[in-house]
Amino acid sequence: MTRPSSVPPPVTAVLDASSRWLPARLGEVEDLLRAAVGGHGETLGADAGATLEAGGKRLRPMLVLLCAGPDGDQRAVRAAAAIELVHMATLVHDDVLDDAPLRRGLPTVAATSGREAAVATGDLLFSRAFALLADAGDSRSVALLADASVALAQGELAQRRDAFDLGLDEDRYLYRCRLKTARLFECACLLGRPDETLREFGAEIGLAFQLLDDVLDVSGPPERTGKARGTDLLDGTVTLPLIEAAKSDPGIREADLRALDPQGAEALCDRIAATGALERVRARALEMVANAKAALERADFAPEQRNLLTLVADGVVQRYS
Amino acid sequence: MTRPSSVPPPVTAVLDASSRWLPARLGEVEDLLRAAVGGHGETLGADAGATLEAGGKRLRPMLVLLCAGPDGDQRAVRAAAAIELVHMATLVHDDVLDDAPLRRGLPTVAATSGREAAVATGDLLFSRAFALLADAGDSRSVALLADASVALAQGELAQRRDAFDLGLDEDRYLYRCRLKTARLFECACLLGRPDETLREFGAEIGLAFQLLDDVLDVSGPPERTGKARGTDLLDGTVTLPLIEAAKSDPGIREADLRALDPQGAEALCDRIAATGALERVRARALEMVANAKAALERADFAPEQRNLLTLVADGVVQRYS
Repeated sequence: MTRPSSVPPPVTAVLDASSRWLPARLGEVEDLLRAAVGGHGETLGADAGATLEAGGKRLRPMLVLLCAGPDGDQRAVRAAAAIELVHMATLVHDDVLDDAPLRRGLPTVAATSGREAAVATGDLLFSRAFALLADAGDSRSVALLADASVALAQGELAQRRDAFDLGLDEDRYLYRCRLKTARLFECACLLGRPDETLREFGAEIGLAFQLLDDVLDVSGPPERTGKARGTDLLDGTVTLPLIEAAKSDPGIREADLRALDPQGAEALCDRIAATGALERVRARALEMVANAKAALERADFAPEQRNLLTLVADGVVQRYS
Repeated sequence: MTRPSSVPPPVTAVLDASSRWLPARLGEVEDLLRAAVGGHGETLGADAGATLEAGGKRLRPMLVLLCAGPDGDQRAVRAAAAIELVHMATLVHDDVLDDAPLRRGLPTVAATSGREAAVATGDLLFSRAFALLADAGDSRSVALLADASVALAQGELAQRRDAFDLGLDEDRYLYRCRLKTARLFECACLLGRPDETLREFGAEIGLAFQLLDDVLDVSGPPERTGKARGTDLLDGTVTLPLIEAAKSDPGIREADLRALDPQGAEALCDRIAATGALERVRARALEMVANAKAALERADFAPEQRNLLTLVADGVVQRYS
């Protein structure tokens, strides 16, 4: 499997700083992923398989491996692959829900092989994740990952429930982000190392990650995000940039999201951006990253390991700067 | 939770014969299921929750409990609930795929709460199944259930891949049935008791179950099945009744499934039935049940326990007589 050519700079920085052991272990994770994704052979089109294999930043596996540290064993490698499989499964299912044609600029499984195959493919990836851990008898990791998966699904259900509700407040938004994103980052850290102080580190960078994702949906540019601006708005998903923008431009809450077309969504993105909301949300995300680093200081890590995790925390922000 | 009023006679027979211990344990399974299904509270409509709770015959949990026997512990009760959660998850996802309005005569989650909520609800039920087992540290059961879930998804993918292919042969059909149905029955038995002879017992009654389900799709009546005749044909799913019918009426393979409407599907059902294919498929299913019972004779069970499992095997056939 070739890594996407556009590995973001912060990830490269982490790889450089830890060249002793991390790249080899990430390679083992890729081998496990390729086996798990490739195993449905005949049933997926080549494009769809390529989409899954091309993958993303492998942020969650990297967190597992970095928290486990240089002395981490095969258990950590398997857990890193398993959490990425769960992440992939949710992406495949999200694309079914959203009828999305593209993900990371490539055709989605739903678009290539049909919604039916995409639901089953997601189920397959989920099952393979648990099989990978369970077959190795790693019940602690299964428990962590299953609980995080429950949270993910609850977050998805909450988001669907809230769809098109322009009265959504910040607390509810953050609650959803915790379930849908932060819990899996927490899980990644705890899979790597059973240290409760890592829960806060994972949760804060997970939240920051989601906030910045939501900024990107408004700001674009589509050439970098691989999707049109305002995709969330078209789905009826209200996020912090809109909530924040409405504080200075309350008329934004009067928009009729159900009647939006792609042009209308772009216009609403411009209106949100004009309030300075994107800068304010980015600042919130930076605070969260600072909280994450503070939590890291309280964990008992060797300096090199702490340094690598700090680079990942910074990377969550830098990828959007 | 009230049990559906139409508990089929064979299940009642099993309950009568084992009144000493089985009903109480099935009740504990229901409690676990209610907790797992009820937990998404706010996010599902009352109708959808009712559909899930009303449930079916609880055949898989019953197999777990019966294989575990009167001395089975809480591990068996949890495994019984977990396998039913996986089964429920696949039903919810199947209904998304099929855009089915009804399941067992009640509105599906997809119909009540939308396709989006249904995908997430299925994911939630899957995750809860693994969380239930993993939180209790039962890694053997997690491994069995994860492997069976992989097979289920592979079976679903194979079925989608084969859709509308009227050249499908019996071997491929049986391969799909093994993945999609038989593996979960096998898993139920092995969850109850780690005895490899039970694998054949479970697989044979699982296959018989699927064959008879496919007969029922052709024969109806809709008042009993809760769905229109020929629903599989409308989905492009070719099953053994059609394959069998084409042996004496080869013109059946010329049908244009993609152009079928509900009336056309009923007419094709009549044409399949006219060949005597349904009787032949039922006879095959009865052979499988006989094989299952023969496998059971080789297992080391107390007479009462073997008797109860025989009743379940017979029940798979009787529910359709």
